[in-house]
Amino acid sequence: MATSIVKVLGTQASPFANRVLIALNVKSVDYEFIQEDMSNKSELLLKSNPVHKKIPVLIHGDNTICESLVIVQYIDETWTNGPSILPSNPLDRAIARFWVAYIDDKWLPLMSDLGKAQGEEAKLEVQEKLQEALVPLEEAFVKCSKGKSFFGGDNIGYIDITLGCILGWIKAIKIMLGIEIFNVTKTPGLVNWGDRFLEDKFVKGAMLEPEKLVEILKLHLAKREANNAN
Amino acid sequence: MATSIVKVLGTQASPFANRVLIALNVKSVDYEFIQEDMSNKSELLLKSNPVHKKIPVLIHGDNTICESLVIVQYIDETWTNGPSILPSNPLDRAIARFWVAYIDDKWLPLMSDLGKAQGEEAKLEVQEKLQEALVPLEEAFVKCSKGKSFFGGDNIGYIDITLGCILGWIKAIKIMLGIEIFNVTKTPGLVNWGDRFLEDKFVKGAMLEPEKLVEILKLHLAKREANNAN
Repeated sequence: MATSIVKVLGTQASPFANRVLIALNVKSVDYEFIQEDMSNKSELLLKSNPVHKKIPVLIHGDNTICESLVIVQYIDETWTNGPSILPSNPLDRAIARFWVAYIDDKWLPLMSDLGKAQGEEAKLEVQEKLQEALVPLEEAFVKCSKGKSFFGGDNIGYIDITLGCILGWIKAIKIMLGIEIFNVTKTPGLVNWGDRFLEDKFVKGAMLEPEKLVEILKLHLAKREANNAN
Repeated sequence: MATSIVKVLGTQASPFANRVLIALNVKSVDYEFIQEDMSNKSELLLKSNPVHKKIPVLIHGDNTICESLVIVQYIDETWTNGPSILPSNPLDRAIARFWVAYIDDKWLPLMSDLGKAQGEEAKLEVQEKLQEALVPLEEAFVKCSKGKSFFGGDNIGYIDITLGCILGWIKAIKIMLGIEIFNVTKTPGLVNWGDRFLEDKFVKGAMLEPEKLVEILKLHLAKREANNAN
């Protein structure tokens, strides 16, 4: 089964799809990337993820898996010969799962709030919340990394992949809106970690450059403005 | 480590705490249950879960684990001699995790909406959504159970525990507000599954009776009304 053809439905701008590509890179699994047009979803996507109709989807032989975190864990449990993505002992696995849930359930919703915030003051307020919500993750980084490069130790792991895939958008937002989320005074460890993550061999090429994301963001904002004007 | 003392911080009315107790029952692990007063949280709770300050918390020797689903997976991976809570193969594990995320991220928020809905019409609208959102779970039940009693097959598993712990509140809401969420026409399989779940040997005693939950709900609503009147 582990040698079946692997396909990923996604967009390269999606941090959730990036998670899947990086996890496959960690395991040295070849895959076919099928670029989805989310404004005109393919029949394959609708058939593969009828519940959410969302990317990413992993198709592995006859198996279809949806939801980025579910997919990353599936990849870790299927290709057991490659480096481990989740730690091996139950306590460290629980700690990794705890912080991954924190990122997706507590921290990421603030990123959506930033998109919705109207006016300078409202944006600064969300920026402050985003920065503050990273402080517990800075502390977690110290504990999990034990002086090594990544949450996962010497290699990128579950927390690294989950948080790291947002870094492209963090940089794009800084370029375009001047809003800094990873702050060198409040969370210096995370700033350095982020630089290392983006240079990692499993990450390079899996994510779009921030400049490309800026173009996509500009296009999105222009469309939204046009819709609001209509 | 598996023989260290096990403590659970929670309330018996919390479905999230119930998940932990049932998972421990499945593994035949003895535990001390420490009842929390959520209006006056203990020092132990605040120290054990400084990020969320929420129940449940599992204390296992020197290990402290928070977040119900993280705890249930920790229990499954720590006490490996007992019956498995998650399936053993990666695909079935992914399917279980997918539906568990669906329950917590899509279906449960509708339960909160029900609590907030003002007036008969708004309540009926949420009831309809709750019933409709169970339909994919009814289909999942048919696929996962393969004709057996539970999502997990012959024994209760990860999806059973996650969804089943809400059943007490489902019944309490029906008694008190006349709102039916598990509907025998729309999701007959789940109605029968729910009856079996509540009779299961690992479940009995871990959850409060619906009548007791009704008392708690009445008290909560009376408090809210008093606060609104002030």
